[in-house]
Amino acid sequence: MPQPTREDRFSFGLWTVGWPARDPFGDATRPAIDPVESVHRLAELGAWGVNFHDDDLIPFGTDGAERDRIIARFKAALAETGTVVTTMTTNLFTHPVFKDGAFTSNDRGVRRFALRKVIRNLDLAAELGAKTYVFWGGREGAEVDSGKDIAAALDRYREGIDLLAAYVKEQGYDIRFAIEPKPNEPRGDILLPTLGHALAFIAELEHGDIVGVNPEVGHEQMAGLNYTAGIAQALWAGKLFHIDLNGQRGIKYDQDLVFGHGDLLSAFATVDLLENGAPGGGPKYDGPLHFDYKPLRTEDLDGVWASAAANMSTYLILKERAAAFRADPEVAEALAVAGVAELAKPTLNPGETVADLKADRSAFEDYDAVKAGERGYGYVRLNQLAVEHLLGAR
Amino acid sequence: MPQPTREDRFSFGLWTVGWPARDPFGDATRPAIDPVESVHRLAELGAWGVNFHDDDLIPFGTDGAERDRIIARFKAALAETGTVVTTMTTNLFTHPVFKDGAFTSNDRGVRRFALRKVIRNLDLAAELGAKTYVFWGGREGAEVDSGKDIAAALDRYREGIDLLAAYVKEQGYDIRFAIEPKPNEPRGDILLPTLGHALAFIAELEHGDIVGVNPEVGHEQMAGLNYTAGIAQALWAGKLFHIDLNGQRGIKYDQDLVFGHGDLLSAFATVDLLENGAPGGGPKYDGPLHFDYKPLRTEDLDGVWASAAANMSTYLILKERAAAFRADPEVAEALAVAGVAELAKPTLNPGETVADLKADRSAFEDYDAVKAGERGYGYVRLNQLAVEHLLGAR
Amino acid sequence: MPQPTREDRFSFGLWTVGWPARDPFGDATRPAIDPVESVHRLAELGAWGVNFHDDDLIPFGTDGAERDRIIARFKAALAETGTVVTTMTTNLFTHPVFKDGAFTSNDRGVRRFALRKVIRNLDLAAELGAKTYVFWGGREGAEVDSGKDIAAALDRYREGIDLLAAYVKEQGYDIRFAIEPKPNEPRGDILLPTLGHALAFIAELEHGDIVGVNPEVGHEQMAGLNYTAGIAQALWAGKLFHIDLNGQRGIKYDQDLVFGHGDLLSAFATVDLLENGAPGGGPKYDGPLHFDYKPLRTEDLDGVWASAAANMSTYLILKERAAAFRADPEVAEALAVAGVAELAKPTLNPGETVADLKADRSAFEDYDAVKAGERGYGYVRLNQLAVEHLLGAR
Amino acid sequence: MPQPTREDRFSFGLWTVGWPARDPFGDATRPAIDPVESVHRLAELGAWGVNFHDDDLIPFGTDGAERDRIIARFKAALAETGTVVTTMTTNLFTHPVFKDGAFTSNDRGVRRFALRKVIRNLDLAAELGAKTYVFWGGREGAEVDSGKDIAAALDRYREGIDLLAAYVKEQGYDIRFAIEPKPNEPRGDILLPTLGHALAFIAELEHGDIVGVNPEVGHEQMAGLNYTAGIAQALWAGKLFHIDLNGQRGIKYDQDLVFGHGDLLSAFATVDLLENGAPGGGPKYDGPLHFDYKPLRTEDLDGVWASAAANMSTYLILKERAAAFRADPEVAEALAVAGVAELAKPTLNPGETVADLKADRSAFEDYDAVKAGERGYGYVRLNQLAVEHLLGAR
Repeated sequence: MPQPTREDRFSFGLWTVGWPARDPFGDATRPAIDPVESVHRLAELGAWGVNFHDDDLIPFGTDGAERDRIIARFKAALAETGTVVTTMTTNLFTHPVFKDGAFTSNDRGVRRFALRKVIRNLDLAAELGAKTYVFWGGREGAEVDSGKDIAAALDRYREGIDLLAAYVKEQGYDIRFAIEPKPNEPRGDILLPTLGHALAFIAELEHGDIVGVNPEVGHEQMAGLNYTAGIAQALWAGKLFHIDLNGQRGIKYDQDLVFGHGDLLSAFATVDLLENGAPGGGPKYDGPLHFDYKPLRTEDLDGVWASAAANMSTYLILKERAAAFRADPEVAEALAVAGVAELAKPTLNPGETVADLKADRSAFEDYDAVKAGERGYGYVRLNQLAVEHLLGAR
Repeated sequence: MPQPTREDRFSFGLWTVGWPARDPFGDATRPAIDPVESVHRLAELGAWGVNFHDDDLIPFGTDGAERDRIIARFKAALAETGTVVTTMTTNLFTHPVFKDGAFTSNDRGVRRFALRKVIRNLDLAAELGAKTYVFWGGREGAEVDSGKDIAAALDRYREGIDLLAAYVKEQGYDIRFAIEPKPNEPRGDILLPTLGHALAFIAELEHGDIVGVNPEVGHEQMAGLNYTAGIAQALWAGKLFHIDLNGQRGIKYDQDLVFGHGDLLSAFATVDLLENGAPGGGPKYDGPLHFDYKPLRTEDLDGVWASAAANMSTYLILKERAAAFRADPEVAEALAVAGVAELAKPTLNPGETVADLKADRSAFEDYDAVKAGERGYGYVRLNQLAVEHLLGAR
Repeated sequence: MPQPTREDRFSFGLWTVGWPARDPFGDATRPAIDPVESVHRLAELGAWGVNFHDDDLIPFGTDGAERDRIIARFKAALAETGTVVTTMTTNLFTHPVFKDGAFTSNDRGVRRFALRKVIRNLDLAAELGAKTYVFWGGREGAEVDSGKDIAAALDRYREGIDLLAAYVKEQGYDIRFAIEPKPNEPRGDILLPTLGHALAFIAELEHGDIVGVNPEVGHEQMAGLNYTAGIAQALWAGKLFHIDLNGQRGIKYDQDLVFGHGDLLSAFATVDLLENGAPGGGPKYDGPLHFDYKPLRTEDLDGVWASAAANMSTYLILKERAAAFRADPEVAEALAVAGVAELAKPTLNPGETVADLKADRSAFEDYDAVKAGERGYGYVRLNQLAVEHLLGAR
Repeated sequence: MPQPTREDRFSFGLWTVGWPARDPFGDATRPAIDPVESVHRLAELGAWGVNFHDDDLIPFGTDGAERDRIIARFKAALAETGTVVTTMTTNLFTHPVFKDGAFTSNDRGVRRFALRKVIRNLDLAAELGAKTYVFWGGREGAEVDSGKDIAAALDRYREGIDLLAAYVKEQGYDIRFAIEPKPNEPRGDILLPTLGHALAFIAELEHGDIVGVNPEVGHEQMAGLNYTAGIAQALWAGKLFHIDLNGQRGIKYDQDLVFGHGDLLSAFATVDLLENGAPGGGPKYDGPLHFDYKPLRTEDLDGVWASAAANMSTYLILKERAAAFRADPEVAEALAVAGVAELAKPTLNPGETVADLKADRSAFEDYDAVKAGERGYGYVRLNQLAVEHLLGAR
């Protein structure tokens, strides 16, 4: 089995391995884990980085002196293990104050409080060297259509993100923002439910230049969407600032399974895109390979660490399989039959105008649509080659 | 029952009432309807406009003379009935030539053919006075991840839309484009699967100023998304150029039910937004109220016309209910309790800077988060008022 | 607005109004409510009955004397208010011991413990006069296919239910069992995921005669299924022993919304079936009208009681609408066109044998299938009549 | 790559490879294939059997003499290739006459016609030696709740199946029936939507002894259900008479992808169950391994045959992987940790009564639930072993 190393740039949230396994129908089945221990254990397993919500490290309401002590101790663990803080984020969802949202709560006091909570943690993010700051707006949403003015909510969301982005720029922090979309849960409907909605929102920002997306496998799949195609669109827009890898088995509650324990064929396509890029080139993802998963509630602490390792192990196997797939001459031939590379060629000829196109009888009047309709693209054979490579059968 | 009039601006696609009811498992159960008859019947029912794909009116492959004859006859019907052609669109999905897409087919010849097919029909749209041209890219997608280079596909999609938009501008046509998203069916995954993805794509266009979206109720609901919240985001972005109203019962195949025969509570919220706008103001939709539905396959021709009428009837009832809801003082009081209007108020004070906010101890250090977390928003009561208004019980 | 009375036979779970609103991403937003207070408040609102899990009333691990005191105090509240205990059930999901299931945990000690927990509570159910005992096996399931031997799990499930049913019979308790299906959450996949699977399981029991189902609106809808059609099948099988009414907006996490705040058109069909029975007759439901919902996490205690009232209010309005729908001559005519009553007529003639049918040339050789295929069933018009009645527009 | 042989017992429907690729939005992209050619090509690829709807072989409305000629020619192809007819079925969905159902159409004449169509084809099935007769009631359903009396529909469904089963018994045919459930499409909601509902229905039949189920991978997954767990329940009930293997990517329209081109991890679990049985023993499936898939609409005829081969190839690879998984000592150890075999052990001791259980203080009063709750089941590690075996990485 391939072993992860720091060069693989794997990272984990403190809240993943540290999840005490409380769910909507059950009490916690595991004790809390000291973040310092998590840093050590993850480093031993081969992880390169960690990330966290403010409250994961510093309990809500901790006073200043204790906060400093916690941070110092945590920094020591980072230094000892050489662990990087890849991203940071704010918990704007656990405390009852955020029950109607943070930046988009109908309560203006809550909105101001939320902004301040983020600002304080941005300062810490800069101090710890996090390069990406994640915004998951899990409470920004509604169950009741008439209870939330969506236009106003988007105004407030924009006001909040723009204000915080301006702050980062003013302070000279080397930080970019990444919005993490989710369609629902814990709210009935969440604002910016897919990466598409988030990209569209970013296009309306004043400071959108430092704002991108952090799509999570399971979140997009909860809307039945193709994760790989989604992150390809984000890459195309130059906005794939971070990713959250995990597993989900279809449209249901948010499962946060180990990466590869959900839709495995889709995971293969994702790794192929992340590692090898689009066939025709274009921007590649070069951020951390982050796992945002939860060890099953049935696991004890040994199971927690085994599950952390499983994420990395599966990723590395898929990476090997994807490399072999790309290198296989039979695959190359199938790609040619399918015309995959042909799509990178512009539809117009160099210098061709609309008038030229209209004058080209071969494009329309003399085009044999019937014959063109008979072409076989051979996609099934191509997919079978992918499946067989994935299964290690080639 | 309220009766529709031309002032209600209702419109129907020729392909809706004219659907011969062939489905993936069954043959047609109804004869084709002459488009001229459809225009007359819809006008009698109170519709204001119609729209159509090129092939709905002029069968694929029709020669020029016959084409002219068909168009002339159709224009006569429009004139006789005073029917408006609200939008037009291109059939880029029925013929086998489009089986791998049109603008994003891996086959470059197909892409050129598709562009020409659109251009020809754009000229007709201008002639007929259609103000909106719809693009539903139902075949732009894939079932096999490795068979479609998504980055290249988006490049080609952009190339196509930008070229056509430039053409419209060059010709001086008074036409805007509206992209209609759909997550899947007939392709396993379709490019621009939600209105969010489409808005994000539009932001990358050169001629995006004349390109917006045409969200369909059922298409967004096929991804489990809240349609009303979606079109609210499109309105917020100034991009709700057209809408397709119909019904869908959850995440399954595309049902195209009569408007209101799907999620009725959601339909109420949609009509409320379309008619009354967001509570805090902002852009309102002023386009046609278009129904893109299919009469059930069990219906005969009488059932077809009854179903067309049903769409308008339900819309008008919901419009009355929404007006009463907005006018009810008890609703106003519930909205106040929920703080709905408060969300339109900026989070920062006029002229307040980030530094000011950081200095405001009342926003954070002295903020009583516990107390704020105890606030009851009364959303359930508000929703119950909506339900009771919808049911005509208030 | 119609006011609920005891004659309406409405009931609520103590865990519904009493839910402190902790969810997977957030802490409780409301204080616990004393069950005695819930009994009083629900009675004031017009409810007839209550029901509960053992742990809702008596915290897990409570010693015998305290248990007796709690029960006595609760009985006093019941007596004071005239409230009936309609059903009872066992909490086999909150405590970590049940994390892999109760009757089907891989751990045999857990299975024995679970049986004993049920037995103790069955004795209490008999004492309190509950006529139905509900089994929701929320933890009976798996996330990992190879971790659960489904055949063995069903053997153990059967062993457990049969043993408990035998116990009830032995003790002479006037209690029937009702299994409540759910497809997933909190487990990735739950055993007996739909009411169909539960009915099929019951058919394999030794003591299946006293075992039926308790289908919940949202649980069936989480699998995209038609709730009304489902309970109609349960009624047809003589197994609809109890129902759980609530609301759900499509395939997503378990929402437990107020009844009618989900799919309203479906709720109308459900009330029509419950109140008026199948058009062609057959068994009718005569059990309690039970609401298994959760007040939104955004509500305070006032909102809790308002939400409880909303369930009953909506039910009563729908009941009125359904009565008017059934009484409308235009509906009767549309039902006749659709041939709804014709379906109750056997397909064979009285006394007709297969040989007779084979000899009937009018049934096949001389049957005009083309003509029969042209019949219009008028379903859209019928549905529109339903919608208009539902909207109070007729 | 493993090569399929007749001993593998693979079979294909004539309608699978023969699908001309017409879909709801597009015309056919491939010519019809002569069934005789399909038999030859499938035999060459290593298939053992074929099956078909009456109309696949003999077009609807063919007269007797031509029918005989077609059958004779088809039998010659079977004999030449040694191909077995594994199952047969009736097309009760394509012709408009069945638009409201067959056995449950509101039109009694249609119901009688449907029964006769089946009877005629049952005689042919017996003649051709098919051992299983499949019933897919794709049109037995509704879009409109008030249009279909579900109780009456189930009465008619039972009448139809019982009559046909009685006929089979009378004739002494060696044929069993297999009902194929589907939740929706082409109807909005289909009767017997899942294998659970079908099993429950079978329990109400007079001749249920010869009636089982034919679950299709994609159909169960269209309801978000776990296919492997589902067929395990059918096996447990002794009712898994046939299976339809294919691929589906989540809850959407019916995709009929190649087996393994959908949820691959689930496909692995399915093959493991089919080949190796439940860990604790019990009934095993010994029927044909049938593929009910559709070659993508983008494929030409070469692609059709490549796709047929892909189904078998993937199955055989998964079979090898499952064998290795079961044989791996590390897996055995993980299964022991998870207590998988422990679930096959009855919860009661041999001869133990309820009274004994109640008297066993170790089961409840002295049971250490806290400690039991701390047990780690190691499911994630077990699943990771499955994933790594599936990927050929062990």
